[in-house]
Amino acid sequence: MEMSALGDESLIIVMTAAATADEVDAVVRRLSDLGAEAHVSPGQVRTVIGAIGAGELVRQQPWEAFPGVERAVPILGPFRSVSRDVRSEDTVVEAGGVPFGGNRVTVIAGPCAVESREQMFAAAEAVRSAGAALLRGDAFKPRTSPYSFQGLGEKGLEILAEVRKEFGLPFVAEVLDPRDIDLVASYADMVRVGSRNMSNFTLLAELGRQPRPVMLKRGYNATIEEWMSAAEYVLGAGNAEVILCERGIRTFETATRNTLDISAIPVVRQLSHLPVVVDPSHSAGRRALVPALARASVAAGANGVMIDVHPAPEAAKVDGPQALPPEEFSSLMDQIGRIAQALGVEMAEPPGGQSP
Amino acid sequence: MEMSALGDESLIIVMTAAATADEVDAVVRRLSDLGAEAHVSPGQVRTVIGAIGAGELVRQQPWEAFPGVERAVPILGPFRSVSRDVRSEDTVVEAGGVPFGGNRVTVIAGPCAVESREQMFAAAEAVRSAGAALLRGDAFKPRTSPYSFQGLGEKGLEILAEVRKEFGLPFVAEVLDPRDIDLVASYADMVRVGSRNMSNFTLLAELGRQPRPVMLKRGYNATIEEWMSAAEYVLGAGNAEVILCERGIRTFETATRNTLDISAIPVVRQLSHLPVVVDPSHSAGRRALVPALARASVAAGANGVMIDVHPAPEAAKVDGPQALPPEEFSSLMDQIGRIAQALGVEMAEPPGGQSP
Amino acid sequence: MEMSALGDESLIIVMTAAATADEVDAVVRRLSDLGAEAHVSPGQVRTVIGAIGAGELVRQQPWEAFPGVERAVPILGPFRSVSRDVRSEDTVVEAGGVPFGGNRVTVIAGPCAVESREQMFAAAEAVRSAGAALLRGDAFKPRTSPYSFQGLGEKGLEILAEVRKEFGLPFVAEVLDPRDIDLVASYADMVRVGSRNMSNFTLLAELGRQPRPVMLKRGYNATIEEWMSAAEYVLGAGNAEVILCERGIRTFETATRNTLDISAIPVVRQLSHLPVVVDPSHSAGRRALVPALARASVAAGANGVMIDVHPAPEAAKVDGPQALPPEEFSSLMDQIGRIAQALGVEMAEPPGGQSP
Amino acid sequence: MEMSALGDESLIIVMTAAATADEVDAVVRRLSDLGAEAHVSPGQVRTVIGAIGAGELVRQQPWEAFPGVERAVPILGPFRSVSRDVRSEDTVVEAGGVPFGGNRVTVIAGPCAVESREQMFAAAEAVRSAGAALLRGDAFKPRTSPYSFQGLGEKGLEILAEVRKEFGLPFVAEVLDPRDIDLVASYADMVRVGSRNMSNFTLLAELGRQPRPVMLKRGYNATIEEWMSAAEYVLGAGNAEVILCERGIRTFETATRNTLDISAIPVVRQLSHLPVVVDPSHSAGRRALVPALARASVAAGANGVMIDVHPAPEAAKVDGPQALPPEEFSSLMDQIGRIAQALGVEMAEPPGGQSP
Repeated sequence: MEMSALGDESLIIVMTAAATADEVDAVVRRLSDLGAEAHVSPGQVRTVIGAIGAGELVRQQPWEAFPGVERAVPILGPFRSVSRDVRSEDTVVEAGGVPFGGNRVTVIAGPCAVESREQMFAAAEAVRSAGAALLRGDAFKPRTSPYSFQGLGEKGLEILAEVRKEFGLPFVAEVLDPRDIDLVASYADMVRVGSRNMSNFTLLAELGRQPRPVMLKRGYNATIEEWMSAAEYVLGAGNAEVILCERGIRTFETATRNTLDISAIPVVRQLSHLPVVVDPSHSAGRRALVPALARASVAAGANGVMIDVHPAPEAAKVDGPQALPPEEFSSLMDQIGRIAQALGVEMAEPPGGQSP
Repeated sequence: MEMSALGDESLIIVMTAAATADEVDAVVRRLSDLGAEAHVSPGQVRTVIGAIGAGELVRQQPWEAFPGVERAVPILGPFRSVSRDVRSEDTVVEAGGVPFGGNRVTVIAGPCAVESREQMFAAAEAVRSAGAALLRGDAFKPRTSPYSFQGLGEKGLEILAEVRKEFGLPFVAEVLDPRDIDLVASYADMVRVGSRNMSNFTLLAELGRQPRPVMLKRGYNATIEEWMSAAEYVLGAGNAEVILCERGIRTFETATRNTLDISAIPVVRQLSHLPVVVDPSHSAGRRALVPALARASVAAGANGVMIDVHPAPEAAKVDGPQALPPEEFSSLMDQIGRIAQALGVEMAEPPGGQSP
Repeated sequence: MEMSALGDESLIIVMTAAATADEVDAVVRRLSDLGAEAHVSPGQVRTVIGAIGAGELVRQQPWEAFPGVERAVPILGPFRSVSRDVRSEDTVVEAGGVPFGGNRVTVIAGPCAVESREQMFAAAEAVRSAGAALLRGDAFKPRTSPYSFQGLGEKGLEILAEVRKEFGLPFVAEVLDPRDIDLVASYADMVRVGSRNMSNFTLLAELGRQPRPVMLKRGYNATIEEWMSAAEYVLGAGNAEVILCERGIRTFETATRNTLDISAIPVVRQLSHLPVVVDPSHSAGRRALVPALARASVAAGANGVMIDVHPAPEAAKVDGPQALPPEEFSSLMDQIGRIAQALGVEMAEPPGGQSP
Repeated sequence: MEMSALGDESLIIVMTAAATADEVDAVVRRLSDLGAEAHVSPGQVRTVIGAIGAGELVRQQPWEAFPGVERAVPILGPFRSVSRDVRSEDTVVEAGGVPFGGNRVTVIAGPCAVESREQMFAAAEAVRSAGAALLRGDAFKPRTSPYSFQGLGEKGLEILAEVRKEFGLPFVAEVLDPRDIDLVASYADMVRVGSRNMSNFTLLAELGRQPRPVMLKRGYNATIEEWMSAAEYVLGAGNAEVILCERGIRTFETATRNTLDISAIPVVRQLSHLPVVVDPSHSAGRRALVPALARASVAAGANGVMIDVHPAPEAAKVDGPQALPPEEFSSLMDQIGRIAQALGVEMAEPPGGQSP
C-alpha cells in the first residue's frame, strides 16, 4: 500500500507489538467508513497506519479504544481561529478606546476588589497619574473559602462606572456566573474570565455571543494548548476580541503562589495573533516580587501587564500582600517605560491621552 | 512579654531579619485592634509574633502586606464541617437508596455520556448483572474542544430515568451550569460536580441549597486541602450529603492522562468523615490500566469506585479509550469482590438487592 | 512523492507554516546524506516530511535546529532491552536466593539507615518473623542537609552481614558514589540506586559492569520513559538483573511527601519484562499512610513492596516518621498475604523458607 | 505554663485532636532531655507545643514519628551561610578575572559540548566579538540515552584551554563525576554542577574542598529551598565562591522543555547574597524562545545569562535546537545591553576588556 500525502491533517496510528492482522483491519475499515485513506506500514516490531484526509470527525474517533492500538498521534493541534496559521498579522483589540496588541505595551492597574468609593477613587487617581491606561477592580470575587469576602456585586460596578467618568479610565471586571454576563457587560469596557473559570465552557460560549472584548486568563492548571482551545470557544461563538492573560501555573515550587510561565509569552506570540498580557501580581502573591516580574514580562515581549495597586495594601479585603502601594507602582511604571523604549515598543495611553 | 496560650487557633507571624521596631508595632497594634493577644519574641535574627485568639477575622487579614512581615503561619487548616475534628464517625450518604461510606464498597458504573436509549439499556443490563449498585451516564458534557459532542441534554436525562425504572438502578449525572441544577436534580439520584468545576463556587453554593446528594470530584489541579474547602462550600450552604471522588491530578507524567493520587484515599479518610470514592477511568484515560487502579483503590480503603463501562467502547462518542467492555467489567467486579472480602469490607447492593 | 513504509523506526518532521521550499530541501538533503528515505507531503498549511529507515543516527540529529522545522516526532520510544517488545515473558531476578518477578510478591523490610548492631538485630528479628524475605538498611545516606547524619559507612555493611548470618535474611543497600560500588557490592546481595541518583549515568554505567542485581528507584522527578532509559543504561552495560522501584513523584500536592504513582505499576508491567516493586514509606513520608499504599501496590500488581520498619521509630536517626513499628508491620503482612491470596499471587519466602 | 520567647529557632509541634495526655508528655520529656524548653498550650481541639531553644539537634528529631503528633513546623528554613541573614551585601565571585554579582550583568556563551577544535574556535570568535565575557563548552556530557554522544573528555578540556589562550576568554565546564574534579578544575576557570547533579551530595561536598568557583545549576525538580541547601553543602565544606544558575523546572507544560522559573530571580536575590544567573537555552529547548527569555532574565534582575551559541546549530552533536547561530546571538547582546543600560546595570567585560 502506498502513502501519497501524509498531510498536515493526518493522523498516525501506532499499533501494539502484539496487534493482530484482524485488529489492523478493524482500524482500516473504520477509516474507510469515515472517508479517510489508510496507509498501512508494517515495521520491524509494530505496524503503523497513516490516515490521510483525517478531518475533525476522524480525529475525534476513540482510536485508542480499538483493540491493538497503542496510540494515535495527530499532526496538528486542535485550535484554528486563534492560530497564526489563519492570520499572520497581530490582532489589535480595543477596550474602551484603549488598544491592546501589536508593537505596544498597555498597562492595566488597580485593586483586586472594589471595596468602597473612597478606595477606588484613591486607586484610580494614583494609577492614572502614574500612566496606566485601564483600571481593574472586581465586583464579584471567587474565593477558596466560603467564609471570605465575596465582592460588592452591582454596587461595585456602579462605583467603577463613576470612577471611569471622573478619571477617564475604562475598566475591566471579572464575571463568574453566566447569569451575570449581561450585568457586568453593561458596565465594563472589557470582561474578564478568571483562572478558575478558564475551562468553564458554558461561560466561554456565552461570552462569545456578547459584544465586549474578553480577557481570558490562563487556568493555573492549563497547558498553553488548552488555553488556546478555550480562546477558540469564544472566537468560535462569534467574538474575535480576545486578550490572553498569563498569570502563573501551579508547580511544586512553594516560594511563590504560582510559577509565572514567562516562556508562555514568546510561545503564544509565535502560535497566535491575539494579544497576550501578564498578571504578575496574582502569580507571585507577594508584592516584593511584582516589579521584577512586570519588567521581565515587558522585556519578554508581552503586550501588556495588569498590576494590583491598592491605596492601602495592609487594609485590603482581598490579596493585600500582592498589591503595590501607589509610590511603588509609579516607580515600576518608570522602569517599564524605559525598557519599552530600549526595545522600541510604544506605551499605550488612556483614551484622552496622558493626564496633564 | 509572656505567651500564655499558643492555642490551636493561633497565628505565627514571622518578621524579616531587617524589620524595624515600628514595623513590629504596626502588626501588634492591628492584632490588638482585632481583639487578639500579641506575644512578641525577639530571636537571634528575626522577631516572631504569636497571635492568640486569632479567629477567622484575624486569620484573613493581609498580614504579608504589612511592611517587615515575612510570612504568617496559621496553626490550623481552613476547613471545619468536613473535618473529623467535628465528627469522628464515618458519614453514610444515601443516593437512591444506595449507601456510600463506612466499612463498605459501592460500585458505580456505566458510560461516560448518554448517547442513545439502546446504548444505555445495553450498558445498564451489563453493569447490573455484574453487580454495580448505581449507574452513571451524563447528559451534559464539558469538552475541551468546542467542536466535540456536548451531550443530549434533557433527552439524556429522560433516557436515564427510563433505564432506572427498567433495571432498578439509581443514577448519578453531572451538572455543569447553575441554571441546570433544578433540571438535573429533578431526574438524578445524585448530582456530580466535575473536576473542572470543583472551584466553581457559584455552582457549589447552589448545590448546597438543594436536597440531592452531591458527588464532588477533585479538581485535577487541586490540593486535598482545596478539595476539602470546596466540600465545605456545599456543607456550609446546608447540604451535608457529600461524597468525595478522587480522579487523578495533573503532573509532569504523560504516560497516563492524569496521575491517580492513591495516597489521597488514606489522607482523606484520616481528615474527613465523608465517603471517598475513586474514578480510575478518567484518571488513566486508557482501559488497560483501569482494573489495576480499581483494585488498588479498594485495597487502599476507598468507599467505592466509579468505572466507565460501554457496550461498544470503539463506537463511544466520549472517552471510548478508557471504557471497559462488559466482560472486562464483570471480571473486574470479581476481583474487587475478592479483595473486599479479604479485607473484611462489605459490597453495597442496588436497592432491590442482587439481580436474580 | 510516494511513501511506502512509514515503519516503526520512522520520524515525522513537521515544518512551520512559513517554511520555504529551501528549508524543506535542506531537511531532505540531510536525510538522504544519512541514508534515510524522505517523503514530502505538502498539506493545506504545513509540509510534513516522513523519514523512512530512521535509525538511531537519524533520530539523534538536531532536526529542530533546522530553519523552518517546527518539531520532529519519533514513532517509537528510546528504550529497547527493557521493553516487552524484545522479551515478552516476565524476567525473574534473584537476590541472595530470593526471587523477584513473575506471579509473585516479595517483601523487603527494615530500617532506613543502619544505626547500630542492636537496632539491626531487633529489626531483623521483627521483619523475619513477620514474613519479609529480604532486609533493607543503608550504610551511606544522601541527606538534603549537610548537617544531618550521613550513615555508618563500612561499619554499617559489616553489621548487615552479621545480621544476614544470624537471621538468614539477604539484604539490599544503597550506593551513592561510583567509588563505593566495589565495597557495597562485596557485602550486599543487591545494590540500590536511590531516587536522586536515577540520572547519575556514571553510577548506572558502572553498576552495569558488576555482577550484583540492581534495584533502580525511580527519580521523583522522572517520567516513566526516563526511568526505563535509566534501566537501559544498566542493561546496556551488561547487567540484566534489574528491579525497578516506584517511590512517588513530585507534584503540587503537599499532604504527602511525594505522590505515589500507582498507575506506574500497570504501565511498567505492560511496557517492560522487568520486576517492579513499590516503596510506599518514602513516598508517603508518614507512617499512617503506609499500610494503605502497600495494600494498593500489591492489588495493582506490583511484584513486591519495600517497607521501612524500625524497632523504635521515634528514636530513628533518619526518616523515623515513616517507619512502622514491628507490630504494625506484622499486621500489614497479614493484609498483604490475604490480598495476594485473593488475587492468586504467591508470596516469596526468605532463602531457608518461613521461620519456624 | 508560660512561653517567654517563641524565638526564631523555635519549633511548633501540633498534636492530633485525639492525642492523649501521655502522648503530650512523651514529647515534652524528649524536649527536656535535649535541653529545650517546652510550652504546652491546650487549644479547643488540639494541643500545641512550642519548643524554645530548638537548635539543630532538636529540629532533626523525628517528631512526626511520636504517637499523637500531627506535624512539626520549624520557624526558620534549613540554610544559613548562603542567606542574607548572615551577609546582607551582594557577594561578587570572580572566575578567570571575570566578576559575577552586584549591580552587573555577565554573559557566558558558547556551545553546549566541545565537538572539535574548529567548532570551538569559530564559537569563541563569535561570542567574543559580540561581547560575551566567559566561554562555555563541556567535555563531559550527561545523556539520558546511553546511545548518545558522551563528550570528548580531557581532549575537550585541552581544546578549551587553547581557545582561552587564543581569545582571552576564560571558561566554565561541567563536572559529572567526583573522580573528574581534579582534572576539570586543573583546566577550567569555573566548574559547573549540572541540573541532574544538584542533589549529588558527594560531588557537592568535594567541590567545596577545591579552590575553583562553582556554578550550581538548579535541579529541574528542586525547590528554591533545596537549591539553597545544595549551595550550603559547598559553602559548608569551605568554598564560598558559588554562583547559582536557574535553568527551568519540570511542570505539566510541554510547549517548552522546562518552565523557566523567572520568579526565582527576585526570590533568590532577596534570600541570598550569592550571584544568580539564568540559562534560558536549556530551559526552553528551542532557539526561537531564547532571546525573549534572556531579555526577561536581565530585566528581572539576574546577574547574568548563559547562552548556547553554536557556529552551525543544525550540525551540533548535543542540543542543537536550542543553540543560537552567531548573528542571532549578536543581536541578542545588543538587546541585553540596552535593557541593562535602561535599568542602570553594568555589563561585565572579558579580562582584557572589549575586543578592539
